[in-house]
Amino acid sequence: MLDHLFFPKSIAVIGASNRPLTIGYRITQNLKDIGYKGPIYPVHPKDSEINGLKAYPSITTVPADVDLAHIVVKNTMVPQVMEDCGKKGVKVVIINTAGFKEIGCAGIELEKQIVEIGKKYNIRIFGPNCQGVMNTEKNNPVYANFTFTRIKPGYISILAQSGGVGEVLNQRLSQLDVGIRMYASNGNAADISIPEILQYFGQDPNTKVIILHIESLAEPQEFIRIAKEITSHKPILGMKTGRTAMGAKAVASHTGALMKADTAIEAIFNKCGIISFKDQEEICQSAIAFASQPIPQGPRVGIITNTGGPAIIATDECIEAGLTIAELSEETKYNLKTNLFPEASINNPVDVLATAGPKEFALAIETLLSDPNIDSLLINFVTPFFVDCLGVANQMKRIAQVSSKPIVVNTMTDKKQWAETVAIIKDSDLPSYDLAETAAKALVALTKYGEYRRRVSEKQEIRISEFKDVNKEATKDTIRQRVEREFLSLGEAMGVLYNYKIPTAKFVIVDNPDDILISCDYVGYPCVIKVLSPEIIHKTEQSAVILNITNKEQLSQEVGNIKKRFGQLDAKYLVQEYLTEGTEVIIGANYIENLGHLIMFGLGGIFVEVLKDVAFAVNPLTYSETIQMLQSIKGYKVLEGVRGQKGINLDKLLDIIMRLSKLLTDCHEIKELDLNPVMLYPEANKCKVVDVRIRI
Amino acid sequence: MLDHLFFPKSIAVIGASNRPLTIGYRITQNLKDIGYKGPIYPVHPKDSEINGLKAYPSITTVPADVDLAHIVVKNTMVPQVMEDCGKKGVKVVIINTAGFKEIGCAGIELEKQIVEIGKKYNIRIFGPNCQGVMNTEKNNPVYANFTFTRIKPGYISILAQSGGVGEVLNQRLSQLDVGIRMYASNGNAADISIPEILQYFGQDPNTKVIILHIESLAEPQEFIRIAKEITSHKPILGMKTGRTAMGAKAVASHTGALMKADTAIEAIFNKCGIISFKDQEEICQSAIAFASQPIPQGPRVGIITNTGGPAIIATDECIEAGLTIAELSEETKYNLKTNLFPEASINNPVDVLATAGPKEFALAIETLLSDPNIDSLLINFVTPFFVDCLGVANQMKRIAQVSSKPIVVNTMTDKKQWAETVAIIKDSDLPSYDLAETAAKALVALTKYGEYRRRVSEKQEIRISEFKDVNKEATKDTIRQRVEREFLSLGEAMGVLYNYKIPTAKFVIVDNPDDILISCDYVGYPCVIKVLSPEIIHKTEQSAVILNITNKEQLSQEVGNIKKRFGQLDAKYLVQEYLTEGTEVIIGANYIENLGHLIMFGLGGIFVEVLKDVAFAVNPLTYSETIQMLQSIKGYKVLEGVRGQKGINLDKLLDIIMRLSKLLTDCHEIKELDLNPVMLYPEANKCKVVDVRIRI
Repeated sequence: MLDHLFFPKSIAVIGASNRPLTIGYRITQNLKDIGYKGPIYPVHPKDSEINGLKAYPSITTVPADVDLAHIVVKNTMVPQVMEDCGKKGVKVVIINTAGFKEIGCAGIELEKQIVEIGKKYNIRIFGPNCQGVMNTEKNNPVYANFTFTRIKPGYISILAQSGGVGEVLNQRLSQLDVGIRMYASNGNAADISIPEILQYFGQDPNTKVIILHIESLAEPQEFIRIAKEITSHKPILGMKTGRTAMGAKAVASHTGALMKADTAIEAIFNKCGIISFKDQEEICQSAIAFASQPIPQGPRVGIITNTGGPAIIATDECIEAGLTIAELSEETKYNLKTNLFPEASINNPVDVLATAGPKEFALAIETLLSDPNIDSLLINFVTPFFVDCLGVANQMKRIAQVSSKPIVVNTMTDKKQWAETVAIIKDSDLPSYDLAETAAKALVALTKYGEYRRRVSEKQEIRISEFKDVNKEATKDTIRQRVEREFLSLGEAMGVLYNYKIPTAKFVIVDNPDDILISCDYVGYPCVIKVLSPEIIHKTEQSAVILNITNKEQLSQEVGNIKKRFGQLDAKYLVQEYLTEGTEVIIGANYIENLGHLIMFGLGGIFVEVLKDVAFAVNPLTYSETIQMLQSIKGYKVLEGVRGQKGINLDKLLDIIMRLSKLLTDCHEIKELDLNPVMLYPEANKCKVVDVRIRI
Repeated sequence: MLDHLFFPKSIAVIGASNRPLTIGYRITQNLKDIGYKGPIYPVHPKDSEINGLKAYPSITTVPADVDLAHIVVKNTMVPQVMEDCGKKGVKVVIINTAGFKEIGCAGIELEKQIVEIGKKYNIRIFGPNCQGVMNTEKNNPVYANFTFTRIKPGYISILAQSGGVGEVLNQRLSQLDVGIRMYASNGNAADISIPEILQYFGQDPNTKVIILHIESLAEPQEFIRIAKEITSHKPILGMKTGRTAMGAKAVASHTGALMKADTAIEAIFNKCGIISFKDQEEICQSAIAFASQPIPQGPRVGIITNTGGPAIIATDECIEAGLTIAELSEETKYNLKTNLFPEASINNPVDVLATAGPKEFALAIETLLSDPNIDSLLINFVTPFFVDCLGVANQMKRIAQVSSKPIVVNTMTDKKQWAETVAIIKDSDLPSYDLAETAAKALVALTKYGEYRRRVSEKQEIRISEFKDVNKEATKDTIRQRVEREFLSLGEAMGVLYNYKIPTAKFVIVDNPDDILISCDYVGYPCVIKVLSPEIIHKTEQSAVILNITNKEQLSQEVGNIKKRFGQLDAKYLVQEYLTEGTEVIIGANYIENLGHLIMFGLGGIFVEVLKDVAFAVNPLTYSETIQMLQSIKGYKVLEGVRGQKGINLDKLLDIIMRLSKLLTDCHEIKELDLNPVMLYPEANKCKVVDVRIRI
């Protein structure tokens, strides 16, 4: 329970100061400015008064209970202060002081030490090296933070790993005159973690939407568990910046090389239904819509406008993001035709004309909202000087208060001259934007979140736990028995796939060229021979791969050649079924510390090598996540069939990927895995893995 | 000369009114509000005073010369009013009245009529169905427009086809407290055109940057000529919205089908060096940077920050847009190391730390600006309460005034509390943004424009006029002689290519299956046979294409089969050299009315069919435009060689495309053309066009 942190009954500031340009002063001032109602206890070794408040020489001399203590003393003094806090029975500390794990070894030690002290006394730690928290609860506001932006009550809570980014987001909302509910930036997160705060915001009834900024995730699985639970009823808008240790890791596999800095976190966001943003402005503007509007039931947008150009911009923006411009019902059109000006355009976007007043706007808005073909509404409203704009705004307000469908407004005006009109729209809780793009983007975010909610609520899930026909034990044995090799041999790796009923091209590995002849009777024609030897680096250039052997005669001849060329090497020979003319795909996986596997899918060949057209998802996969992964690559159409070719068997591909997900779930020992290529065909029984690499 | 429009010595308002909610009143009020210094003559049939100004019963009764007359009377009355204006000697009219060509036939007639009257009396017409113009010249400001946003002097001029979009852009700049220089939205553009206004803005010394909004272009070639001239010395920032008639045209070719709504205008912008935007916010914010900053000499950005997170955002944004984070010189690093706080990060981005004051900021800024490795500077400045922020701002101002390299600032603050600091930065002419992304995007736009300027100034151009070895006359003959067919026959089309020395696969067309045998002696092996007959629709399914015939025996056999299967048809037979294992590309062209040809380039097969990975450029092409077109496709690397394959002969590809450009320049009769596929190889002499379609 973080109530002591966000709703402390009393606050001490250890390291408070009378010098205004210090953090120790600033925090006391911030608490006073926001009207914090509990007692504030500055702690200072000498001064008996700080910033007009009675001060105490140490936390232990404070005459009453202390819920929350800020610690702003020098880093090396923090352990002693923590001990004092423990003795005093302080519930939670915010350690603003820097100089902990972010500075290297000495700091890491110091941070360990304070965590231990915290455990000993049951003190929760927020920070160190952090800003703090804020809340705007009417009767109990708190500004336990040394930043400076003025805040007011609202429904958006901000959780930011980077204090700098958190403060900018807060500033932006403040400048847009939008309130926030709670704010937290926990720096090094030695104890109280991002997932824990997220959970707290998730349970807070006055937080309607959470803005989350992330640079890296220490506890991804815990994060996923909590975030998924929250997004099932409350939106999280996420923004990831910069490079992570995850992405920077040196990697040996194809899959690893295709991972970008933010691949893992993007995949995590995607799995949790966190709407992902790359832009601070967009995340703030979208949050404003989430704070007041219901979630659309589908992608069909209605647009009402009283000016042409901006409606085109809104339309472009919606369509490009995958929304649809709703086809209006006949009833709606009739209604508009009958009641709007004769020159009005009654098709979506509905142009009520610049001369439209309160009556026309109200009619159009109510008619569109009641059309079953419409899921959401965007209003483009320029304020002509010859129109009763106040009346229009009042109509919007009246209707917005009873609408069960989301509405966003693009109010195009000179805010100084039309201040009253702007105020009414604002007061109506309608998200009002200056630009058509911004309004449309907010609607896109609302719609995306609605899609996620519908997707996870679909019950036709196949779960990997349903695969009972796999042989986990044999696989574990294979992994255990491998001796000091990072990579499984091809035979072992193929065996692992066999254990999980992932189909592989028929193959035999023999030690002697003469055995190739017999092997082919098993493998069949056409077949391929690969000479396997550490001395052969470039198989193709050294003619150590012979493709497409179609008959016994050709085979005998090739075996003769092989003997001549490679007979003296300590080589093995792979004889494998030769698969052609299918669709080549690559399926891979990379193990990320603490997270588990990221699974990758992409079309093979040039698609992956030139276009990097791949998708990642966090293991374990559900059926719908797997489908989403396939559909998210640009070349998806190739799987469905192009240029007169039949599409591949999608069910079989799904089965292969989900069995792989099961394998990876069972065997965390697998660090990297590439199935490359997997050859796919319209016929399920022809789809097979051709080559596999598994690193343990 | 549009001086009479933008700097009129006197203005009449024909259709002025005493009712405040009318356009006729509003214009008089706007002129008064902005402090227009010339005489204003309201014209009203009855009232002798309008809005406190002496009014006249008709324009002819005005007692002095009239430079500019607004016309806001009913559309059908406009011709008569124009006649009066003619008699009075009015120089230019702004016809705000709607109801002309935008309403269909009657309006088109009316518009023609007023254009004729204009010609007769030498009156220039702005509009009809338009807003008007504005300028903020100190001693001669004009607000000849019925909109309502307050403006102040600045260096950005706005030219918008859509009045709605123009007004929103103007509002946004006004809200950002940024001035404008001139404004024009000319509606139907019956006489004074977009290119003409553009040229005027281009020549105006106080316009430092032009914002241009376009929905469609009536005179693309004129536009290109003028825009190119302007962008050689002054930036144009362009935004295209909505669908154009150009893009919506029904088309028969591959090339046509791949054109999107805004393909033509994007290609035109690209050719002219107009920086293209899809977002009103971004175009306004970038214009602010162009209005005060020099153009970067290259893509290497230096970043100075006093907070971590936002610097990461700026870095991400710059790198994603193709800029580079400059490698600092050793001298710079030494300087920073010696003079900044010890914990400061002296690599780019340079983190001067939150505690950095005026001295540290000044040192960092001046050091980076003088580093020859740096082309531009981005400053991330959060205003810590414990720092002399005014001092920092003053240092920025001092340095900005003498810097020859562009600087953008991301000022992160609470603008109410830090108003003075913000004011100093603003006063310094430094573009100051609220968010790191916005600052970075503005820098990206500056850099892109710089790249364009460098690109066009390179003199190593090959010009298509240099191709003296083409046979234009023979081609014209071929086109003329074709009888009532839209498409040239394959033989004719191949002949056209031959005339322009565009290499084609060897081929022969014969009427009799027996002649195939002889033809192959000329074509050589391997070869391909195609049966050509209107009765054969699906060549492949009907086995009317026989690929890869490798010897005479096989040929005889196939000819026998052909006789059996197609002997009874009135068919012709194409025997062609069979090209395999090259890189397939498609080159196409589409003729656009008034513009000329758009040339398309893309990789063949799945690249074009699934990924639509193609690029367009406006004919005629220069050498650098052609290279840019090739490089702009996502699959460009394929041309350079991937997966161990050698790249194709780029010089030969360039030669083919530029010869095609010459052909299209000579023959506007060609409406659509597809070279599909063109097979390319490392060897120039192997590169050949396999199939061609030309529609006249």
